[in-house]
Amino acid sequence: MTESNSTSGPPLWTTSLSESTAESISIRGYDLPELIGTVSFPAVVHLLYTGDLPDAATARLIDAVMVASIDHGAGAPSVLAARTAVSGGASLQAAAAAGLLTLGEFHGAAVESSMHAIASVADAARASSRGPLDAIADELVAEWRAQGKRVPGFGHRQHKRRDPRLDRLLAVAREAGVAGDHVAAALALEGALARAIGRPMPINIDGVMAAILNEVGFPSDLGNALFIVSRLAGILAHANEERQTMTPMRRIDPMHHAYSGPASRGLPTTGVIASRATAGHT
Amino acid sequence: MTESNSTSGPPLWTTSLSESTAESISIRGYDLPELIGTVSFPAVVHLLYTGDLPDAATARLIDAVMVASIDHGAGAPSVLAARTAVSGGASLQAAAAAGLLTLGEFHGAAVESSMHAIASVADAARASSRGPLDAIADELVAEWRAQGKRVPGFGHRQHKRRDPRLDRLLAVAREAGVAGDHVAAALALEGALARAIGRPMPINIDGVMAAILNEVGFPSDLGNALFIVSRLAGILAHANEERQTMTPMRRIDPMHHAYSGPASRGLPTTGVIASRATAGHT
Amino acid sequence: MTESNSTSGPPLWTTSLSESTAESISIRGYDLPELIGTVSFPAVVHLLYTGDLPDAATARLIDAVMVASIDHGAGAPSVLAARTAVSGGASLQAAAAAGLLTLGEFHGAAVESSMHAIASVADAARASSRGPLDAIADELVAEWRAQGKRVPGFGHRQHKRRDPRLDRLLAVAREAGVAGDHVAAALALEGALARAIGRPMPINIDGVMAAILNEVGFPSDLGNALFIVSRLAGILAHANEERQTMTPMRRIDPMHHAYSGPASRGLPTTGVIASRATAGHT
Amino acid sequence: MTESNSTSGPPLWTTSLSESTAESISIRGYDLPELIGTVSFPAVVHLLYTGDLPDAATARLIDAVMVASIDHGAGAPSVLAARTAVSGGASLQAAAAAGLLTLGEFHGAAVESSMHAIASVADAARASSRGPLDAIADELVAEWRAQGKRVPGFGHRQHKRRDPRLDRLLAVAREAGVAGDHVAAALALEGALARAIGRPMPINIDGVMAAILNEVGFPSDLGNALFIVSRLAGILAHANEERQTMTPMRRIDPMHHAYSGPASRGLPTTGVIASRATAGHT
Repeated sequence: MTESNSTSGPPLWTTSLSESTAESISIRGYDLPELIGTVSFPAVVHLLYTGDLPDAATARLIDAVMVASIDHGAGAPSVLAARTAVSGGASLQAAAAAGLLTLGEFHGAAVESSMHAIASVADAARASSRGPLDAIADELVAEWRAQGKRVPGFGHRQHKRRDPRLDRLLAVAREAGVAGDHVAAALALEGALARAIGRPMPINIDGVMAAILNEVGFPSDLGNALFIVSRLAGILAHANEERQTMTPMRRIDPMHHAYSGPASRGLPTTGVIASRATAGHT
Repeated sequence: MTESNSTSGPPLWTTSLSESTAESISIRGYDLPELIGTVSFPAVVHLLYTGDLPDAATARLIDAVMVASIDHGAGAPSVLAARTAVSGGASLQAAAAAGLLTLGEFHGAAVESSMHAIASVADAARASSRGPLDAIADELVAEWRAQGKRVPGFGHRQHKRRDPRLDRLLAVAREAGVAGDHVAAALALEGALARAIGRPMPINIDGVMAAILNEVGFPSDLGNALFIVSRLAGILAHANEERQTMTPMRRIDPMHHAYSGPASRGLPTTGVIASRATAGHT
Repeated sequence: MTESNSTSGPPLWTTSLSESTAESISIRGYDLPELIGTVSFPAVVHLLYTGDLPDAATARLIDAVMVASIDHGAGAPSVLAARTAVSGGASLQAAAAAGLLTLGEFHGAAVESSMHAIASVADAARASSRGPLDAIADELVAEWRAQGKRVPGFGHRQHKRRDPRLDRLLAVAREAGVAGDHVAAALALEGALARAIGRPMPINIDGVMAAILNEVGFPSDLGNALFIVSRLAGILAHANEERQTMTPMRRIDPMHHAYSGPASRGLPTTGVIASRATAGHT
Repeated sequence: MTESNSTSGPPLWTTSLSESTAESISIRGYDLPELIGTVSFPAVVHLLYTGDLPDAATARLIDAVMVASIDHGAGAPSVLAARTAVSGGASLQAAAAAGLLTLGEFHGAAVESSMHAIASVADAARASSRGPLDAIADELVAEWRAQGKRVPGFGHRQHKRRDPRLDRLLAVAREAGVAGDHVAAALALEGALARAIGRPMPINIDGVMAAILNEVGFPSDLGNALFIVSRLAGILAHANEERQTMTPMRRIDPMHHAYSGPASRGLPTTGVIASRATAGHT
């Protein structure tokens, strides 16, 4: 452990995340230069957040969750706030901060609490022989409703149709052999909520990401972090486009906008980058 | 192009970044679900920022730049601001925003201007037969100094020794066949600045990232964005550690801290995730 | 009610705060130009927040609460975060935003919940003949402790001695004839908490401000707002001093600082501005 | 000067703004408790920013400038960003920070540079006998246009008609005996810009506030601060109204809104608070 030389002042505090000295910088004990060009960014995020490098399947899912979160169109509240800031003259990073500040319970910060809800069902199923998963889910939903607790991760706010990202994420999870108890628990919750509320409460993107992150053992207190980091990338793109192409102090209508980018196209069959990183390194 | 149905209100505005409808979400024309689990997050960031998927070498460099930027220890201003916010009771994303707001001309937002400086030298070398690269660099440095312009990307603020990340990034760039005119221009600038100022002005991490991003044709107006997104991941880790392990309202000494995490370790030879994604997709 | 002319788009939304047209700007129905130079800023804040102009006593207390909140030295978390942002190169308003983001449950955002707690005691005393105020306070404290609820507004975090602002604020409240049920309720809570916890839990600045704001009927949902607005004035002063006098990227030690401003001095007996604005206007 | 007892660590840094010890808190040498209920909030802001208490006329103008800045309707970019943040679930202070971040060169942060421009004209007029004020203004405008410099404080972005706050602020300045060289310089600039550009460039609210702040000797580096502090009060009111009355995640149309508050009313003739604080204190 590296210590400072001071003998006075407030008590020493510590971090277990990283160490930076004049000679080196390490992340959870791994020399950062060794990670550069060797371990993918999503895997290094996992290392920083959990303390260990992920296995291949987990790395693939972390990457998939981040790709899924990167952007959801120019009408998202975070994008509108960032564009508004740029329009008033803010710098790119100040505008990005403004966009981040719109992420709250209703927009982008529901994954953590959804992870808790889904884990409760999965843990209860594992811990006892209290009957079928559906019955366990019904019981927990009844408890939560009696306490006035919302269950994040289920129900549509914006979409009438099924969010197109959901099925792909679940497919990737199954392909990677990661889908198990928590996905089953999430689907059980879907049914239990529908029965309790009296209308469909389909799992949404927060719920799917929560189930997947539980499956790979990701810490729930950082459950929202992957979304936040990824969405920041999208927010910066919008802030920059605003700065480069729009006049300052414009009224930004959240509905009256259209897409003017490249037409629909399919992924090339050659030369594209596969996210499924191979094991090993060079 | 999708249009809204409204016939009144402010003029239609457009974005070329993404399109979100009830049925689908696409990024620069590619269906987002298709990208999930197929194209890596750094490559999707490149797609969003430039309009096209990167080739394998470029994707590797984008990934490498992001890994290099993720964290620089608990004493960084952005980390201290975020920890301070958490200590006062702020949410994780508010603390992250506070951290982002410390990134400015002196901390994390110098890549863009360094890209311009390096490109000036490379372009001047390409455009004419004005003599050796060193002479071109000397000439431009003299011009800039006469105008009172700083050249970001060169010189040490914090380190007496060579930043350990630099050589690795340059090595990855060479391995990937990407190092060329701009790296040469950057090294020429290093020498020219030293001659003009009268003391060593070694290229720093901003300068190396700038040279590399120029090599892969990355847009300079988003030159800082990769650093910002990546560093946010680090800031969130610190904010969360503060929230989980420290008492509120503590005096956070920027020097009196130590590392208490895993001991130094080398990368495993098997089972680790390689960042060098393979071409193609499944 | 002014209506827009659009016949399509999202439903009309309304605000009852202010109205701005090409010809005029009004705050809760009062023409803003008429307020300029006629009604003091704290009184206009009260108007905006409550919908009505305050009487003289209330205006004096709002002003007093704002003066009390303006600054608490260079070691406050909000100041440190703002100075850190400036040091990294942020603009004044970005640095101010960073400072604002440190205000949370433990620092500056406790007035609202303290208002609720004190009002509970005052309301219970008013509503019934349940015995002396002390007994009512004891009962409520027991309830809250059973529910694991903290009672903000009481207890020292930083000071061993009595916060010098408290007695003056209470004196102004008494002078203005405003101290009544809520101040009594707050003092009863002080005693009840001490009995329940077994050590002194003296009312702190949040508790005193909360009691006073309850006395003047201020809305609790904006209970923190006066502190936030006022403290921003202080944060901006520190951010500006940092920008004007310090070198960028410096390590800001939260303890190793000293005061170098004007020496202690008493208020002049003539020519000073009295905050006790007179009734009427010219 | 109070010193800390530490003998190690980074060098001592100082502030001349305030001093907080276990026993006392002082602002520029004045004991803060003595200021509470005695000196108005705008006057204490002046004290903090300049180092001295203002005279009565200056205090009245600082107050007037703050009242003029407090709010400009629900369509202002800062309000829209704050409401958007609340709609996503952000806390009141995080939403306020988001609003602050939209204040930039084009919205709320132009007073400082306008103060410089107006002072240039006033100083040139005072320093020499270079001819009538108009000729001096013409000369400086020609210089600035040749350098590509904008002159903030003049011209309409939003209003076709004369901003109703301008004339009242100028009247208050004249009443207080404060209008002089800088107001004259500002009006001369108005004419010079119109002649140079070929269309009217009437002074706007930033220009009037700039002229007034120059008249009272306010420091230009804090020229934007009064606007920022005051506007934050307005932003918080809107953020709170959004939180109390609107559904989360709503599309906030910047045009399709209306006023639903109290009908137009005149100031009462009795019982209202006069901002013109009397000299002396009790």
